[in-house]
Amino acid sequence: MHPEVLAAIADANGGHQTAYGEDVYTSRLHEVVVQHFGERATVFPVFNGTGANVLSLQSVLPRWGAVVCAETAHIHTDENGAPERMGGIKLLTVPTPDGKLTPELVATQAWGFGDEHRAQPGVVSITQSTELGTLYTPDEVRALADQAHEHGLRLHLDGARISNAAASLGVPLRAFTTDAGVDLLSLGGTKNGLLFGEAVVVLDPTADGGLTYLRKMDMQLASKMRFVSAQLVALYEGDLWLRSAQHANAMAARLRAGIEHLPGVQVTRPTQANGIFVIFPPGVADVLRRRWRFYDWIVETGEVRLMCSFDTTDADIDELVAAVTDAVS
Amino acid sequence: MHPEVLAAIADANGGHQTAYGEDVYTSRLHEVVVQHFGERATVFPVFNGTGANVLSLQSVLPRWGAVVCAETAHIHTDENGAPERMGGIKLLTVPTPDGKLTPELVATQAWGFGDEHRAQPGVVSITQSTELGTLYTPDEVRALADQAHEHGLRLHLDGARISNAAASLGVPLRAFTTDAGVDLLSLGGTKNGLLFGEAVVVLDPTADGGLTYLRKMDMQLASKMRFVSAQLVALYEGDLWLRSAQHANAMAARLRAGIEHLPGVQVTRPTQANGIFVIFPPGVADVLRRRWRFYDWIVETGEVRLMCSFDTTDADIDELVAAVTDAVS
Amino acid sequence: MHPEVLAAIADANGGHQTAYGEDVYTSRLHEVVVQHFGERATVFPVFNGTGANVLSLQSVLPRWGAVVCAETAHIHTDENGAPERMGGIKLLTVPTPDGKLTPELVATQAWGFGDEHRAQPGVVSITQSTELGTLYTPDEVRALADQAHEHGLRLHLDGARISNAAASLGVPLRAFTTDAGVDLLSLGGTKNGLLFGEAVVVLDPTADGGLTYLRKMDMQLASKMRFVSAQLVALYEGDLWLRSAQHANAMAARLRAGIEHLPGVQVTRPTQANGIFVIFPPGVADVLRRRWRFYDWIVETGEVRLMCSFDTTDADIDELVAAVTDAVS
Amino acid sequence: MHPEVLAAIADANGGHQTAYGEDVYTSRLHEVVVQHFGERATVFPVFNGTGANVLSLQSVLPRWGAVVCAETAHIHTDENGAPERMGGIKLLTVPTPDGKLTPELVATQAWGFGDEHRAQPGVVSITQSTELGTLYTPDEVRALADQAHEHGLRLHLDGARISNAAASLGVPLRAFTTDAGVDLLSLGGTKNGLLFGEAVVVLDPTADGGLTYLRKMDMQLASKMRFVSAQLVALYEGDLWLRSAQHANAMAARLRAGIEHLPGVQVTRPTQANGIFVIFPPGVADVLRRRWRFYDWIVETGEVRLMCSFDTTDADIDELVAAVTDAVS
Repeated sequence: MHPEVLAAIADANGGHQTAYGEDVYTSRLHEVVVQHFGERATVFPVFNGTGANVLSLQSVLPRWGAVVCAETAHIHTDENGAPERMGGIKLLTVPTPDGKLTPELVATQAWGFGDEHRAQPGVVSITQSTELGTLYTPDEVRALADQAHEHGLRLHLDGARISNAAASLGVPLRAFTTDAGVDLLSLGGTKNGLLFGEAVVVLDPTADGGLTYLRKMDMQLASKMRFVSAQLVALYEGDLWLRSAQHANAMAARLRAGIEHLPGVQVTRPTQANGIFVIFPPGVADVLRRRWRFYDWIVETGEVRLMCSFDTTDADIDELVAAVTDAVS
Repeated sequence: MHPEVLAAIADANGGHQTAYGEDVYTSRLHEVVVQHFGERATVFPVFNGTGANVLSLQSVLPRWGAVVCAETAHIHTDENGAPERMGGIKLLTVPTPDGKLTPELVATQAWGFGDEHRAQPGVVSITQSTELGTLYTPDEVRALADQAHEHGLRLHLDGARISNAAASLGVPLRAFTTDAGVDLLSLGGTKNGLLFGEAVVVLDPTADGGLTYLRKMDMQLASKMRFVSAQLVALYEGDLWLRSAQHANAMAARLRAGIEHLPGVQVTRPTQANGIFVIFPPGVADVLRRRWRFYDWIVETGEVRLMCSFDTTDADIDELVAAVTDAVS
Repeated sequence: MHPEVLAAIADANGGHQTAYGEDVYTSRLHEVVVQHFGERATVFPVFNGTGANVLSLQSVLPRWGAVVCAETAHIHTDENGAPERMGGIKLLTVPTPDGKLTPELVATQAWGFGDEHRAQPGVVSITQSTELGTLYTPDEVRALADQAHEHGLRLHLDGARISNAAASLGVPLRAFTTDAGVDLLSLGGTKNGLLFGEAVVVLDPTADGGLTYLRKMDMQLASKMRFVSAQLVALYEGDLWLRSAQHANAMAARLRAGIEHLPGVQVTRPTQANGIFVIFPPGVADVLRRRWRFYDWIVETGEVRLMCSFDTTDADIDELVAAVTDAVS
Repeated sequence: MHPEVLAAIADANGGHQTAYGEDVYTSRLHEVVVQHFGERATVFPVFNGTGANVLSLQSVLPRWGAVVCAETAHIHTDENGAPERMGGIKLLTVPTPDGKLTPELVATQAWGFGDEHRAQPGVVSITQSTELGTLYTPDEVRALADQAHEHGLRLHLDGARISNAAASLGVPLRAFTTDAGVDLLSLGGTKNGLLFGEAVVVLDPTADGGLTYLRKMDMQLASKMRFVSAQLVALYEGDLWLRSAQHANAMAARLRAGIEHLPGVQVTRPTQANGIFVIFPPGVADVLRRRWRFYDWIVETGEVRLMCSFDTTDADIDELVAAVTDAVS
């Protein structure tokens, strides 16, 4: 947790506030969100990213709806079926080379409208930055939004790493959301320094299908909501979101620069945000694993994912680079 | 509906029977099923194929379970998300060249055991004959069963066209089910001449996780169950299932023989059961559509699926062949 | 199954029809339903009563919706949680003296609108005739409809025994449905002589929230729908529904007359349709159970339910009356 | 949030820990829980009380299971159908005079075992202290546990206010849980001073049906779990839980003593924990509402609920008492 976030929690602990969102911190969060995403934006704080995603998708889908997403999407690979089981949602997944959907890829699943046998595509969901560390440009998002809207679908953006994307692209958050036609998004917090807390942000007011009720029945309503809101305010009111994300991105670049030229080390994907993907020479990953914790991305190929965060230091990176250098020689 | 099935329904209408399965026809069905599938088999008649599939899968999965299946599986493509929405099941789909899973293909999804973030693979589901008209040999099924059991998974077989498979393979039903390690199956009826009615057949008694209760809560319990059972008895007691399937398969072969040599007609897949897949020259499919009803299989390529059934006649085929011949010339 | 229904099934077996409802029998059913329920009515044949009820309720409820119903309602007591588990619906039950809701009783649950913590009441569901054999007059239904509509709720009628109600009230079906403000109903078939088959009938077209899709995903879509429709046509096209119901009601009245004066026999509820509720002297129920099958209604009090049907005969009743007479003496 | 809890959060912010529960704070929480509830206890931290309840119930129920609970239970009245919609659970509610179940009351719903038409009772769920501010003695819990176990059911305890109960009864937490036969419980945190955080505590290890997986798929898995665990440790490691609860209870007693003798003020229920229920003379509640926030309990009768917490002060109570005194005179 970032110290400024902890301070905000401590500050919010003074005095009584009405529970369940009728508090001054949640009101302030609404203002902050409007500032980032425009006048029509509304915000629904929740506990975690899976909650934000399932709520977002449910709120714009009928009971027979389906979501077109990349095969690598977090909602498909890392949520133990929460969208299906809790949300009653069908996922229509698309293989992608780099974690990014394109209109052509979406078209492979966005069909069958009116056919009762097929789950009806109702949302396209993209992740920014993606699970593979890649980015959508504002124009790429716009193209997906235009296609979606043309077919009566909504565009959802999973923004668990939205700040890293904005930092890397060098644009405001609204450039690839509100201004690019996104209908609603999951606004990240935990991965960028919060104790916990994410939010559904609705950009097109007609896309709010009962979020107040859904949040409660989906077990995502915090009674002491002020503490979720106060954290999100601390993150997004000033530039903490941007500073932290820029730092994390810079650490990933530093790591890449430190290891990509080493013998046998293969950086497998573009490093556009705070994650880098690497295949190490045989045995090296296991050596590193003794001191660092990271995910195997593809077991067969030995590809691993290394993530940097707001509190990764130059020294942390240098230490890891030294360890890799040592291990490969 | 086959006339012998209609006769069986009429016969079953004499006198009172206890509702919900405690009737003589359902008892007789148990005997018939044992005869086909062995001493340990039990049977649960249901309304339709989607019901049989969802019940089968739910009964052997925990709430956090997942099913490995082909991307072309009926449970994935044609049931409007019933497995997910009604069953609370996650599907882990695998692209296949011919609609058939292999141990290698299953292995691409059967992993992550013990990882709470991933829906836990608990069943491998195959279709026999497949949605692409292809067949598993008993040995191929056995290999999948062995792999599944080694990892603690169950093997389910969607047998909506099980009779066509047996007829084509020239083996008894048990050769590629009970004897090949299948744990439970959806026993087809409607596609082979019933008014309506399918059944879950449990081959490994330890694989019955509350089917009695699941059938009721899944809205698949017929109060006048005798009429479902009587139809299934009519189909499977003697050789009606086999005669009808052999005939349908023969009709598909006749159709293939009649058109495959025609200019511009491309039969796209093996014809091992009662369906054939064809790409016609441009415009031909639309001409045929005026008199016959068939599905577009892949819109982009123009591939269509033509299905034959127990009541397709030589004359029907010849008429269609003539129409194609006429259209392509 | 009534012989006229069997005949209709046999008739419908001539020639090919398009599957899934695009057949002449389903078209004819639409006309028949319009004739009974008015120009705006539409019909969706399904497999069974639980299916009709869950579909009806889902189609007019948001994901956070709730249904106000009597504590004795079939949807609450006899469907193993299908409305909750398959439909995602919360039931708000009300104790009643006679199985009937009143505006006063509904008001005990129809509150909390806008409170995110409470499942939002969206439908009032009544059963006609009720599970306790009682009836709503058209005026009583109208009062419930007016109250429901005033609060933005829908009124659903579970009409598994709708014909018995109409027969007893001596009014057309529309008198206590369309003309009394009912929005949609489950139209009974199985209990009045069909092999199987019920239907959702939508009376207010704005109350059809995606029934086409819901029917498929709820596993209630018959591929050979013509056979469901043909049965419903046979029942409702002429007066078979009425003849059968009148007969069943008359048999219940005959039974009541035959036993209510016997020593120790206590008929516990009004006999307004085809069921009668009785407490027999100790031991008598068990004697009767050797030859007849009936439900214990309330185990503690020994109350049992005896149902008459279209094929109950005078002789059946007389035999039962004689057995009771014998047993109590 | 209690200052000691805030301090614990701040302390836990030093250094890196493995996510999702493999951290030293969660390990320590296990020890603390064992200390309170015995050697066999295990703990699963979650976000909120609804999450703890739904997880608990799901983990010991088959898909066709039902829960017997009081009509006033939080799971029935205040969770917008989460148990039904997210958990797929049927609730069988029982009216009670005082919010407490008894074996006699449970027996009115715990029946129908083996009947496929009825949701199968699998858990009895009680709340301690109850939603009406009343308490179960250890003997009363034991009687319910014995009855439950005799019929193969589990006993769940919703312990959102478990500390207030122990404080009032003057017994350790295990006296009315582990030692009284409770199988698993929802351990409260938020209402007793945490920022957020509750936990499922499993007392009988055979009652853990996949909680690890359920927690993830139910969207209740905190990535930075150390912060949930650290709070729970702060609360339960020493006597903070008890001090805070004793204080809250004392404040409720003080409030009762201050107002119960006032003219027209009717305290409607026993005050055994931290809540008191009052009917004020007409108009008084609305006067108080201008400065204090409280729930209408029963709108018709004007009964309201006043809750005291760890940070309610003598001065707060005296101020409220003065306001009531003033208003009624």
